[in-house]
Amino acid sequence: MAKSVLDMSMSLDGFVAGPNETPDNGLGDNGGRLHWWFARGAETPHGGVPGRPGDVDGEVMDEMIATGAVVAGRGTVDPAGWWNGDHHDGVPVFILSRTKSAAEVEQWPLITVLDDVGEAIGRAKEAAGDRDVLVHGVGCAAAAIEAGVLDQLQIHLVPTLLGAGRRLFEGIDPDRRHDFELTSVREGRGVTHLRYRVVR
Amino acid sequence: MAKSVLDMSMSLDGFVAGPNETPDNGLGDNGGRLHWWFARGAETPHGGVPGRPGDVDGEVMDEMIATGAVVAGRGTVDPAGWWNGDHHDGVPVFILSRTKSAAEVEQWPLITVLDDVGEAIGRAKEAAGDRDVLVHGVGCAAAAIEAGVLDQLQIHLVPTLLGAGRRLFEGIDPDRRHDFELTSVREGRGVTHLRYRVVR
Repeated sequence: MAKSVLDMSMSLDGFVAGPNETPDNGLGDNGGRLHWWFARGAETPHGGVPGRPGDVDGEVMDEMIATGAVVAGRGTVDPAGWWNGDHHDGVPVFILSRTKSAAEVEQWPLITVLDDVGEAIGRAKEAAGDRDVLVHGVGCAAAAIEAGVLDQLQIHLVPTLLGAGRRLFEGIDPDRRHDFELTSVREGRGVTHLRYRVVR
Repeated sequence: MAKSVLDMSMSLDGFVAGPNETPDNGLGDNGGRLHWWFARGAETPHGGVPGRPGDVDGEVMDEMIATGAVVAGRGTVDPAGWWNGDHHDGVPVFILSRTKSAAEVEQWPLITVLDDVGEAIGRAKEAAGDRDVLVHGVGCAAAAIEAGVLDQLQIHLVPTLLGAGRRLFEGIDPDRRHDFELTSVREGRGVTHLRYRVVR
């Protein structure tokens, strides 16, 4: 059965984007560092091309694009230009938003806008069949964790400090217990891929 | 030669203590979870005694107490009752504090209070000889990183979300680059020990 898996690159100090995010600076100052590991074909200070097929980062990328549906929030999809309506391979995309009638959505038949995270993940799992559901974004993370509808968490931990910006974990209720169990660690290039199961 | 190694247990959302820290609640609400892995002899929900000699957590603990000097800040040492003057095995302890003349210090000959992190780590390295220097605490972390006097970072990453509390990385200048390189990953019980080299 499909599992919902939050997949996010995070700095060691907990940020998913640096400060001063703008449409032209989508990941904020120095935030691009968080994505070196999957920037296939990009030049990186490691002196190579990360995420090549066959290596650890490529394997992680391949798993992400083997998912059968995507759930994301407006904060993720807006800066990404709604992925031009197709996140990967034509799988259904469920966007969590309180603004249901985004005019742009009509042109993209793969995209459905919903305001309830439980419904979004439920419908995504149904659509994904045997495959997993890729969950993306800060708002989705908190909503899915608090609603108890997240099954796994994959953090691509990038050993850098951004010092400011957008944090992955915001709006988590400190009065509730949220525990995870490590299921795998993989060392990539300039990144450690940590996969956890949500303990309920 | 001695290396300065910051050693801290941190939740997945970046906290080293939960909210509502008081003298009787030194790690804040739920903050005790961060220390299960080294609470030798303590009962834990894992159903066992962590940090036993011979296992990974025990090995990590042994390395920490094999250090030849300690550098810590007031925020660490005050709640710990100044470790009664001896952090471990009688090694010298350098406390970073702007209040030099803490009356209590006089009774503890192993403890020196200094207000400059560079001097504190320099003197600790000298005292440690061939052994490493254990660096502890949030204030020390930021000061040592910003001053460029930290050599390594060992994060004991605990897969829980505290939601609020005291963050490990605070006061890091976002305009400077702080990069690290992973040198080892060890899986303990309910914790992942990540060791990084500071890239200068």
